[in-house]
Amino acid sequence: MSRLAIISAMGLLPVELARAVPSALVVTLQGVGHDHTGPVHEHQLERLGALFDDLKAEGVTEVVFAGAMSRPNLDPMQFDAFMQATAPRLTEAFGQGDDVLLRLVVSLFEENGFAVRGAHELLQATANGGLIAGPAPDERALADAARGVEILHVMSGLDLGQGVVVAGGLCLGIETLQGTDAMLGFVAQTPKHLRRAKGVFVKAPKAGQDLRVDMPAIGPDTIRNVAQAGLAGVALAAGRVLVLDRAVTLKLAEDLGVFIYGLEEI
Amino acid sequence: MSRLAIISAMGLLPVELARAVPSALVVTLQGVGHDHTGPVHEHQLERLGALFDDLKAEGVTEVVFAGAMSRPNLDPMQFDAFMQATAPRLTEAFGQGDDVLLRLVVSLFEENGFAVRGAHELLQATANGGLIAGPAPDERALADAARGVEILHVMSGLDLGQGVVVAGGLCLGIETLQGTDAMLGFVAQTPKHLRRAKGVFVKAPKAGQDLRVDMPAIGPDTIRNVAQAGLAGVALAAGRVLVLDRAVTLKLAEDLGVFIYGLEEI
Repeated sequence: MSRLAIISAMGLLPVELARAVPSALVVTLQGVGHDHTGPVHEHQLERLGALFDDLKAEGVTEVVFAGAMSRPNLDPMQFDAFMQATAPRLTEAFGQGDDVLLRLVVSLFEENGFAVRGAHELLQATANGGLIAGPAPDERALADAARGVEILHVMSGLDLGQGVVVAGGLCLGIETLQGTDAMLGFVAQTPKHLRRAKGVFVKAPKAGQDLRVDMPAIGPDTIRNVAQAGLAGVALAAGRVLVLDRAVTLKLAEDLGVFIYGLEEI
Repeated sequence: MSRLAIISAMGLLPVELARAVPSALVVTLQGVGHDHTGPVHEHQLERLGALFDDLKAEGVTEVVFAGAMSRPNLDPMQFDAFMQATAPRLTEAFGQGDDVLLRLVVSLFEENGFAVRGAHELLQATANGGLIAGPAPDERALADAARGVEILHVMSGLDLGQGVVVAGGLCLGIETLQGTDAMLGFVAQTPKHLRRAKGVFVKAPKAGQDLRVDMPAIGPDTIRNVAQAGLAGVALAAGRVLVLDRAVTLKLAEDLGVFIYGLEEI
């Protein structure tokens, strides 16, 4: 018997997972926030030992991390014995990029006997290749998508964002800590004289990114913001970006006249 | 006898140059805009042949490009003979990055017998190394500046922006086509919970950038926007970034309590 726990932060993804796997235990974290309406087990990041004990008592053997979470502030005064023993590794990881911290979190769960699954394995909701919704992209849009991929590749080593907007060959936005929606809001304010084409939002995981803990995703809000920014559409790395709330997202793209397109081999 | 022409677009830099070199001929371009109050010779980008003739008639032997200009729309119907002959080279350059286009413009002036000077040679207004104004940056600010330099280095090959904001090791903004002030406005809107330190705005030329045509610059507006964004200060590549309206800019930094710091060897 294997049982899944969803280690949940905010957003649609953990809610969709809980719906897709009704037997799963939903774990939320104090101070992080979540959007579940059903029952949850709330835990503290400072007491991962207690969390592991609870998971074992509940028969959990697999976990999936899901949802958006900014880097937490931990209070060492509240650490349980497990976290006290782990403190030196945490301190080291905190000084480095988010990728390092996430890899450590995955390791801690694995060392304690849990298999770490990816949301994409459980939901089968990743972008496919080719046109997914909306009008077909024209040649200019495909060229903008290719330029976006080039920019993301170069930036891949920097442990930064996963999204970029290109319009008529010119870069209008690069995702930073504030996330996709903030970046699209910035693009929407671009003065008209700087825009030579509608442009494309390109989203792909970083090279070497562990999709199990940080898989890029789009959803209805993304499509609304893409349309609001006057872009022609969204280009996604096929198989490596989640399309959340898929039916709603695709219908919105059709209604607003923006494309969703899956790029193969990027 | 050598005489200078200032090929002027918008902003402070061409105005400062005209003040620094009173004998210079100021050339403005139809549809581009400028901030001069004194006499100017207005020309059309579509008629560079006529511009060259005028410069020669005025005894001009050297030119300096100055000011901010977005990529122009040219009307081929208005091309003079020189521009018609140059059209194939222009068309090719237009398909590539701004750097390529700027290099072509420099070549056209040089091929027609004009020496192309850099504004930094004429103004001696570049950032020096070390503390230039305001409070000394602390260790955290210097670490953020170093991370900014790292990001700019990696992005250097992309022919994108020249500025980046880093706060507590996290990237809050990367300059795109909209420019420095737009990016700092975006950073100012960062939600508080994402900010772990005040942060630093880092500005440096791209690797291999021709400083004669596209030298990065800061001025009073930069300092106002840096303070508005809640940043600790500005770090500049020493010797390779202009500090415009220097006395006013430095006094503003002191008054607003933000540092201006020159980074050696970046």
